[in-house]
Amino acid sequence: MSVTRTVELEGHIIDSGMMQQAFGIVMDLDGDFEVEQFDVGKDKESTSYCRLQVMAADQSTLQSILHELHQIGATLMDPVDVTVAPAPADQVVPNRFYSTTNHPTKIRYDGQWIDVENIEMDCAIVIEPAGSVDGGPRAYTKVLNAIKEGDLVATDETGIRVQPPERPRDAGGPFGFMQGGISSERPSESLIRQVANAIEETKAQDGNVLVVAGPAVIHSGAGDALADLVREGYVDSISAGNGFATHDIERNLYGTSLGMDVETLEHPRKGHKHHIYTISEIIRAGGIQPAVEDGLISGGVMYECVTHDRDYVIAGSIRDDGPLPDTITDAVEAQNAIREQAHEADMVLMLATLLHSVAVGNCLPSTTKVVCVDINPATVTQLIDRGSAQAIGMVTDIGTFVPTLADFVLDDE
Amino acid sequence: MSVTRTVELEGHIIDSGMMQQAFGIVMDLDGDFEVEQFDVGKDKESTSYCRLQVMAADQSTLQSILHELHQIGATLMDPVDVTVAPAPADQVVPNRFYSTTNHPTKIRYDGQWIDVENIEMDCAIVIEPAGSVDGGPRAYTKVLNAIKEGDLVATDETGIRVQPPERPRDAGGPFGFMQGGISSERPSESLIRQVANAIEETKAQDGNVLVVAGPAVIHSGAGDALADLVREGYVDSISAGNGFATHDIERNLYGTSLGMDVETLEHPRKGHKHHIYTISEIIRAGGIQPAVEDGLISGGVMYECVTHDRDYVIAGSIRDDGPLPDTITDAVEAQNAIREQAHEADMVLMLATLLHSVAVGNCLPSTTKVVCVDINPATVTQLIDRGSAQAIGMVTDIGTFVPTLADFVLDDE
Amino acid sequence: MSVTRTVELEGHIIDSGMMQQAFGIVMDLDGDFEVEQFDVGKDKESTSYCRLQVMAADQSTLQSILHELHQIGATLMDPVDVTVAPAPADQVVPNRFYSTTNHPTKIRYDGQWIDVENIEMDCAIVIEPAGSVDGGPRAYTKVLNAIKEGDLVATDETGIRVQPPERPRDAGGPFGFMQGGISSERPSESLIRQVANAIEETKAQDGNVLVVAGPAVIHSGAGDALADLVREGYVDSISAGNGFATHDIERNLYGTSLGMDVETLEHPRKGHKHHIYTISEIIRAGGIQPAVEDGLISGGVMYECVTHDRDYVIAGSIRDDGPLPDTITDAVEAQNAIREQAHEADMVLMLATLLHSVAVGNCLPSTTKVVCVDINPATVTQLIDRGSAQAIGMVTDIGTFVPTLADFVLDDE
Amino acid sequence: MSVTRTVELEGHIIDSGMMQQAFGIVMDLDGDFEVEQFDVGKDKESTSYCRLQVMAADQSTLQSILHELHQIGATLMDPVDVTVAPAPADQVVPNRFYSTTNHPTKIRYDGQWIDVENIEMDCAIVIEPAGSVDGGPRAYTKVLNAIKEGDLVATDETGIRVQPPERPRDAGGPFGFMQGGISSERPSESLIRQVANAIEETKAQDGNVLVVAGPAVIHSGAGDALADLVREGYVDSISAGNGFATHDIERNLYGTSLGMDVETLEHPRKGHKHHIYTISEIIRAGGIQPAVEDGLISGGVMYECVTHDRDYVIAGSIRDDGPLPDTITDAVEAQNAIREQAHEADMVLMLATLLHSVAVGNCLPSTTKVVCVDINPATVTQLIDRGSAQAIGMVTDIGTFVPTLADFVLDDE
Repeated sequence: MSVTRTVELEGHIIDSGMMQQAFGIVMDLDGDFEVEQFDVGKDKESTSYCRLQVMAADQSTLQSILHELHQIGATLMDPVDVTVAPAPADQVVPNRFYSTTNHPTKIRYDGQWIDVENIEMDCAIVIEPAGSVDGGPRAYTKVLNAIKEGDLVATDETGIRVQPPERPRDAGGPFGFMQGGISSERPSESLIRQVANAIEETKAQDGNVLVVAGPAVIHSGAGDALADLVREGYVDSISAGNGFATHDIERNLYGTSLGMDVETLEHPRKGHKHHIYTISEIIRAGGIQPAVEDGLISGGVMYECVTHDRDYVIAGSIRDDGPLPDTITDAVEAQNAIREQAHEADMVLMLATLLHSVAVGNCLPSTTKVVCVDINPATVTQLIDRGSAQAIGMVTDIGTFVPTLADFVLDDE
Repeated sequence: MSVTRTVELEGHIIDSGMMQQAFGIVMDLDGDFEVEQFDVGKDKESTSYCRLQVMAADQSTLQSILHELHQIGATLMDPVDVTVAPAPADQVVPNRFYSTTNHPTKIRYDGQWIDVENIEMDCAIVIEPAGSVDGGPRAYTKVLNAIKEGDLVATDETGIRVQPPERPRDAGGPFGFMQGGISSERPSESLIRQVANAIEETKAQDGNVLVVAGPAVIHSGAGDALADLVREGYVDSISAGNGFATHDIERNLYGTSLGMDVETLEHPRKGHKHHIYTISEIIRAGGIQPAVEDGLISGGVMYECVTHDRDYVIAGSIRDDGPLPDTITDAVEAQNAIREQAHEADMVLMLATLLHSVAVGNCLPSTTKVVCVDINPATVTQLIDRGSAQAIGMVTDIGTFVPTLADFVLDDE
Repeated sequence: MSVTRTVELEGHIIDSGMMQQAFGIVMDLDGDFEVEQFDVGKDKESTSYCRLQVMAADQSTLQSILHELHQIGATLMDPVDVTVAPAPADQVVPNRFYSTTNHPTKIRYDGQWIDVENIEMDCAIVIEPAGSVDGGPRAYTKVLNAIKEGDLVATDETGIRVQPPERPRDAGGPFGFMQGGISSERPSESLIRQVANAIEETKAQDGNVLVVAGPAVIHSGAGDALADLVREGYVDSISAGNGFATHDIERNLYGTSLGMDVETLEHPRKGHKHHIYTISEIIRAGGIQPAVEDGLISGGVMYECVTHDRDYVIAGSIRDDGPLPDTITDAVEAQNAIREQAHEADMVLMLATLLHSVAVGNCLPSTTKVVCVDINPATVTQLIDRGSAQAIGMVTDIGTFVPTLADFVLDDE
Repeated sequence: MSVTRTVELEGHIIDSGMMQQAFGIVMDLDGDFEVEQFDVGKDKESTSYCRLQVMAADQSTLQSILHELHQIGATLMDPVDVTVAPAPADQVVPNRFYSTTNHPTKIRYDGQWIDVENIEMDCAIVIEPAGSVDGGPRAYTKVLNAIKEGDLVATDETGIRVQPPERPRDAGGPFGFMQGGISSERPSESLIRQVANAIEETKAQDGNVLVVAGPAVIHSGAGDALADLVREGYVDSISAGNGFATHDIERNLYGTSLGMDVETLEHPRKGHKHHIYTISEIIRAGGIQPAVEDGLISGGVMYECVTHDRDYVIAGSIRDDGPLPDTITDAVEAQNAIREQAHEADMVLMLATLLHSVAVGNCLPSTTKVVCVDINPATVTQLIDRGSAQAIGMVTDIGTFVPTLADFVLDDE
């Protein structure tokens, strides 16, 4: 163990799991450690402090260990300023650029710690020096494809501090702290009740509720309930795809979804034609908004979004039919639109769509409340397991979930 | 193609798929056929008739083809009486004994076609000659372990006629005809509405409704709703395991299921202890009925069963804790108890248990209405795919399904 | 039953299930029928013929029934020419345009039946009259977004004949005929053996094998085996996404996939950084081909594609990081590239990706051989259940499937 | 916070997660704490010590907190002897009996800490005082149904110490430490390689390998590979059900499993008959061993067990056909047989069966190595998530897993 470096951890580092992780990282990566100082918080409000000397056989191993420790919030002793380098060309980052986590992050610039704006994972951090725009130095994230030649990009990990979420000081309630596993063995209606409460609290604080919705919301008969929540103002924003919007409109135009009558379960069988006819009608009308204004569309989720001026993004995908004129077919443009929704959101409901939920989830900081609902446990696990501090995963039927949720929320009014 | 035999098919053999299957069987098994006569039913009420000469390269191939054709309802021309042989010992069937399907079946005995009683698949058919018990000859099924030395057991396939269910003459509704695939893309609440209607119709005709319930019914918070259905007389019989009964009683005794408070979702964490304590309390009381009578158990599904005299079977399994004194630990005895429930039932709801549902399903004729509900699509497919003529499969959350169903049924009163 | 129309069905209409479906459609949709003529094929090589009078209570019901019968191959008596109308604007189809199935289709134009080229479902049919391009009249499919003002588009269903695949005359082998259900209870290695045989047969006939691959192919350690198949010429074309390509290249650059060392299973933990660093390196190099030429990439699936000049399409999606410069970010452009791959393909292997498999599947006629492999049974069911005449669905682990397949194929050389 | 109690934790309590859990328990259950002493282990070999004062609003809350702390290994200061009470009747435990965890456990009796033998969860601890049998006092577990009147049973938690497994001091390798989540995104063949190594190591140390096998092992074509492992001595013991044994023997007798030819994939279609015929043949022969000795059975897993004298348990269930004479139909008797297998085992492979795996898992201490393999991720999660210290979960195809494993193990010979 020939190389060594000293790091510090501070905060609720025992009960938030950082100490356990720190020791685990060192052991997993074949390093060694010595605790130089450990001041335990005497009670649950007091924070703890640990100064840890980390040792490794070579510099490369030490760097790997320090990289991992950095990600869980450890900082190097005697911090110096962040190092920066200019981007050599558009979309090209400097070598050894710093790639962000989804946790709140600060950089040290000119001896000052400043917050990185719009934190989001797998981005570069761009620094604008003092005076450049509005007085002070700023730091914010940029995805790779948004980098411009000359952007000052943070490199390495010096002068960068990550703040993973800490365990709340009280009983956690249903929004578990950093829980990976999802149990389908929880009482469904009680849990939906808690989601309803969380929506109500978010709205009571003027928060923004974003719903990410897949086509199964419509097939499963939950479209009316979601439309009610949009109309009544419990949903501020919808992030969906061409399929969701088309099925929603098909249901309004023909009373079917995927060709099945949603009320009677009778299968007119010519249903698939309805799908492609719906798209063709909306293309003819010039888009969803003109189709609502012309009276062609008279109800449904998209109708309520247009009528009540809720924000919506319809992101394209390679499996789309049509698509509708409202669909943003370019993936990078669509991501940018989704990114704005995600940054606005205080609470996100991900309903029965893996693709759109991952796209939204990629843009969320770890501090946003997330509820994931899907019939497939693997989908819920994949979505929840991204380091959100407050997340509920439910393996349930979207066709009963949304109506039950809407009942709870609207009955409480 | 040196050997040949002629078979007949009669009934709604085109739209029930028998003709398609018959041709497929011959081709799959490397045989050949010649249609000697084909009288198509002119309209949807008329039946069709087909006489088919089947050819094969050798006797063994022909036998395989005829066996398969037999199972879908084809009969040999010029039928003769069933062949029988006495069982050589208890539990030992004669060589080449006939193994039943789950379709209504007749045997030809003394020149007369008589119905096989209690039809159930993978059984032997035992014949009691005229005069033996109550006058006429009788035929009924026996599972292998019930065979007694000297029982007259049907062998081969001559003189045996199978009657697979035919497609109903009208639009099928949600109980699809012989449908294999299960879609989770159907409107959930509309489908639950149809299940509610089917229960009401069954009860209106004094039918018997059997519920097969897994422990997830309780964990998911659906216990109260099921207890309501039992109390109000919509469920006649419960078939479950030691786990279901214990969780139901734990919920009444401690307010928890698997240690989680079903209302508040608070996790007292000492929950697992509740499970084993529940069993120990019921052992101490001498069983569920005495525990209800002593006032120890004051609510829940088992309580309603005892109080309202609904039949219940608690079948043991190797994963049981305890078990409760009411649990039938011997698998053969438990099967016999389940068999009685299954034979009584006009409609069966299989709720979130593969093991008990398969056990019940094994004893059902193909004419019983079946509803299968599980969050796991593979479970639903496996249960539905057993040749029931009228089956609904739903991939949904049992924790919202049962309460929604109970609301529909009880609101209709 | 006041309105009536006569249709004809011809071919192997019993064993291919068309007669059963036809009767089922009429009954499901509340119609009635009378069989006017039925000539059954006497043996398995002879085709059957049915003339069926269909009745309904009103014109709309009759139209629905006829629409469904049309889709399974029934034709109206006394056919007339297809009706056409010009597209009123770009991307706008005429009212009541005909939306295609994925089955081979003919239209009757100027009294002649001509094949519709590039058949693919949910498209419009565009007709070029005689003399317009190369002599004779032509008909081909266009997706909605490709329609140009003035295109002559087929409307209604008159003069259009659909030819669903018929059951092969021999034992089907593993490529089942129109089978919906997927069993995971088949012997895995025997089935992989059959897939290997099908690839060898396709290549022996100079056929084109298209592989649709998801990132799990790389994570699960199957990248080398797929690269072998590409190099040795058993795979002509790769259809994938930015994730697949990035993971494949990450594995070559850093020896990891999602940060896990694929050989040692050791988790360097800084793996996620590798992912975004890989993208940044390829952006710097100017794309995959320059990165291969510069020697930056020295192995893997993409390397073999570039080196051996195999066609590849990298289609973008909203969950992409980066993306790589090779990624087609516009969904419509990407679909067009995928469409070309799909039309070239004689056999398609869909490996562990729902999104890209649906996109490819949307462009395939029902006559292309398809093999779908996924660990999730719901994915396999959804992909297989699209009316392909020859499809194998396997619920298995892609990480053992591809190496076993490659062993079989390469050992046979 | 009016009541208080002091507990101690000692060992690798930070990196094994006990401190994090301890603080979490107190906060989740609305208690409070004060750290009285905390001595951190300076390096990775040194243990830590924590003395913690726990406070709660009332005695009942405090008891709940102490109960949970007890389960993770905390002990009360100033320990006293265990309290005991005699069982009032057969199968009836005293009130407030102590219900075990699956972790190594000691009790303090006559001032001495003695190990509890055969530790297994949800059992009572029975104490035999000094002199009763072989000199010293003994303590061992008993399941509820084995309790005899007068047994001295431990009550409450005083004088009982639980020792949850600690994190190994080195990089964990594939047998993760207490990992809940199961990823299907690991390289399959590399992971199977590691399982092979673990089997070889176990056998090199004269350890016992128990395989729990479901019928899918046979359906999926993996029977020969498992038979090889049994024959070559890598599997000491098989725990299975009537279905597994019957399918294995059917394959030997008729070449089919569930009616499908495992080699050719041809479907003789009369397969189901083979299943019931197999049972009837073995009943006639008097059981598996006589059937092997008579030459009726000439290969397969059961054949190798009989021939090479490997222990096997065939546990009955309510879904069994037959059953075979070797099947233990009583669940309690079957559990006792399984318990013996489980106690002998050093390493357990659970292959594609939830029921039998749970039954075996219930009897395992947390120190036994476990490998769970299933195509269904929910099954793997449920099995792994039971507190085993060393467990591998793999979501893969049993039909490729077993042959690949056997190749690795047998090639290494």
